[in-house]
Amino acid sequence: MSSTLRQLRQILGEAAVRSDATSLSVYGVDRSTQWAAAPSAVVWPDSTEQVQAVVRLANQLGFALVPSGGRTGLSGGAVANAGEVVLSLERMNSIGAFDPIEQTVQVQAGVVTQRIQEFARAQGLYYPVDFAAVGSSQIGGNIATNAGGIKVIRYGMTRDWVRGLSVVTGAGEILQLNGGLLKNNTGYDFRHLMIGSEGTLGVICGATLGLARAPRDPLVLVLGVRDFAALMPVLMAFKAAMPLRAFECFSENGLARVVAAHALSRPFAHISPYYALIELDEGPEVVDAAVALFEASLARGEVEDGVVSQSLSEAQNLWKLREYLSDTLARWTPYKNDLAVAVSRLPAFIDEAERLVAARYPDFEVVWYGHIGDGNLHLNILKPDGMEATTFVSHCAAVSQELGALVQAHGGSISAEHGVGLLKKPYLHYSRSLAEIELMRGLKRVFDPRGVLNPGKIFANVTPP
Amino acid sequence: MSSTLRQLRQILGEAAVRSDATSLSVYGVDRSTQWAAAPSAVVWPDSTEQVQAVVRLANQLGFALVPSGGRTGLSGGAVANAGEVVLSLERMNSIGAFDPIEQTVQVQAGVVTQRIQEFARAQGLYYPVDFAAVGSSQIGGNIATNAGGIKVIRYGMTRDWVRGLSVVTGAGEILQLNGGLLKNNTGYDFRHLMIGSEGTLGVICGATLGLARAPRDPLVLVLGVRDFAALMPVLMAFKAAMPLRAFECFSENGLARVVAAHALSRPFAHISPYYALIELDEGPEVVDAAVALFEASLARGEVEDGVVSQSLSEAQNLWKLREYLSDTLARWTPYKNDLAVAVSRLPAFIDEAERLVAARYPDFEVVWYGHIGDGNLHLNILKPDGMEATTFVSHCAAVSQELGALVQAHGGSISAEHGVGLLKKPYLHYSRSLAEIELMRGLKRVFDPRGVLNPGKIFANVTPP
Repeated sequence: MSSTLRQLRQILGEAAVRSDATSLSVYGVDRSTQWAAAPSAVVWPDSTEQVQAVVRLANQLGFALVPSGGRTGLSGGAVANAGEVVLSLERMNSIGAFDPIEQTVQVQAGVVTQRIQEFARAQGLYYPVDFAAVGSSQIGGNIATNAGGIKVIRYGMTRDWVRGLSVVTGAGEILQLNGGLLKNNTGYDFRHLMIGSEGTLGVICGATLGLARAPRDPLVLVLGVRDFAALMPVLMAFKAAMPLRAFECFSENGLARVVAAHALSRPFAHISPYYALIELDEGPEVVDAAVALFEASLARGEVEDGVVSQSLSEAQNLWKLREYLSDTLARWTPYKNDLAVAVSRLPAFIDEAERLVAARYPDFEVVWYGHIGDGNLHLNILKPDGMEATTFVSHCAAVSQELGALVQAHGGSISAEHGVGLLKKPYLHYSRSLAEIELMRGLKRVFDPRGVLNPGKIFANVTPP
Repeated sequence: MSSTLRQLRQILGEAAVRSDATSLSVYGVDRSTQWAAAPSAVVWPDSTEQVQAVVRLANQLGFALVPSGGRTGLSGGAVANAGEVVLSLERMNSIGAFDPIEQTVQVQAGVVTQRIQEFARAQGLYYPVDFAAVGSSQIGGNIATNAGGIKVIRYGMTRDWVRGLSVVTGAGEILQLNGGLLKNNTGYDFRHLMIGSEGTLGVICGATLGLARAPRDPLVLVLGVRDFAALMPVLMAFKAAMPLRAFECFSENGLARVVAAHALSRPFAHISPYYALIELDEGPEVVDAAVALFEASLARGEVEDGVVSQSLSEAQNLWKLREYLSDTLARWTPYKNDLAVAVSRLPAFIDEAERLVAARYPDFEVVWYGHIGDGNLHLNILKPDGMEATTFVSHCAAVSQELGALVQAHGGSISAEHGVGLLKKPYLHYSRSLAEIELMRGLKRVFDPRGVLNPGKIFANVTPP
């Protein structure tokens, strides 16, 4: 290893290669909690050419690399727990050329997502991919995991905003993919193959991002519904009537915890089992139409109570009820599942999933929330106080196999937006056929023949041919 | 071959296998004009399982298949000129389940695009991929070539509307890709890899398509501009002010021919070198804003004259000036180039391209039109009357090499929306690096190890490993 470190230092300089205990422990993990950091070094290239040189050295010497961004992932995609070299992109953090006519901007992989949102706003535009971790996640990681979030129903995933990519393949080739063009039908689209590949095919070094028109201010409704199934006609009515910007939901036991933890007010006095949070484009005709839909769903008994934001700050405060959930639940070290099925299947799915958990583990409390308009549910199983973490995780892993089978029966996804990494690898076959997984391994061999990039993530590492 | 035909008939039945001269000549070509049909048979499977059986037989006996839709492509992607078996999807033409809450519909590959547009309209929704050939093109071919068209600036390419795919790989595996889910981050996205791969990796048998909200009626402006460069500030002003549904352009020599051929009226008396056609969402505030922008560009001298549609039928009539171009020019057997560069580079690019053609072939007339808001230009070189077709094509092919180098210098695409097929294969390296082309060949080996699917399209066929 000391020879490897020496050669890395020759490429990157002394200061850009570290193997001290703090660096290894900080950069060896992401926000998944099941793996202990154990990289052998951390390196910070400052150019695509330096990334290429590191990848080529890895091929030559046979060591593994873990590409690393803001390490906010929840599935262990950025974990280095087996002596890998962590390749941090955080020094490649420049925002480059802005094209006002294309409404695109060039960014390096290490730019923090929120900076891109702010840059867009300063141009009178909007970068619409938004989620709780934007203040520390980096765009390279967003692209590598095809990050989703709270605006997917209107704006799509990260995939939909990537107009071009600079990538170093596992074989050490620099590829400039799509050059930021809107239209380019010249053979296989490697850009889309790289997006969501979790650093297993190439290291994303930079991107050209599309920016959207600035949206109107948000109009936000929070509605308490009779039961989960009642969310469906409410969603259908709103979706048919007007463009939605978000259609989220959360369960009462989640709301109660958020309100208590953050000393917030409930949106209204009535307690319902589930709540919908709906975001629309503010505007007088929208307010009238939304209130009419709200009243009609009240009259039908689907909605029990509700509130409509009267100002931007009220809209922002209502969003806190949803956005603070993930952090609030952290105190119960929840076992998270990030599931998707077709929207119309959600009521049956959630019902079966609750019965499944309750039958096996009647003491486990489940908190549901998610992007219901996208068919995407986050199932959080809370650890009972006093239970050992490892015991809890092994119980949950058993539940996850059954949940996976249930997801498969409903034609759904075992990872809607969090990616596979290490955490979902044992469940991948519930969403992808064995033939597909073999094809993934075949593609891995093409782009990374020696298997140096993020080995063991998504699927078992491919033996070099 | 007779043994092959016999085995095909055993799989598909007598009526679904033909080798008569008419079938071979009709199904052996698309709308490219340079290749003579020479397939050995045409087959019409009626299910994904029959497609799979044919692909497996091709692997077993070692014959080549050309997947075939409406054969409206312009790049020779559906040409069978070397004894291949044409695999027509046209009998697989059912529209299946519609999901009103997801706003998706399942379709088989052989459904004609216009039927999907009509189906969507009947649900109060909109299938937004639109181009001249929608009345005969099929959705499977649209997906295989990632069809674009006249609404890309607002709605994107076909890629953006494909939520799920059923595919038979070259190895004969049936893959169900993405299951119609909006969110599904479970490893490599083969759906996007199949889209635009021109039948070289898999046979697209069916798809789940997203549908858009029904648009407002169109408001259409046609503006005559001082010169091509003057289109840029006009585009910039409109794009900054309001969402565009189309921003097209055409040159005066194209307009003159359309008006003469179809006995149409000119939009206004003044003759300008180029015209912009702009489509917006109809509505009183939009009309006022659009007229104000039009007047401001008149005052700045960018626009010389213009017209704003006063009704739906006027809007439709103005569109004819643009939509009839391709058919009108057919009489001059134009040599087409479908090029894209970043929008801001268009004026320099068009200037250099015109000088290039004029210097080499001063007798060749060039008609420009295209989707200027997308950076996509169709360059049509008209065949001088009296010149032999083969002489003309060989001159144009020489020009195309120089044009390719010019496109490369501007970081553009040698095929913005028409695909590569046979026609653009000699120019692929101007838009994709040699490393990328080698990676494409590597992927081809993974999905189609015996090279039975559309061999020789996009790149030279891969020798079986």
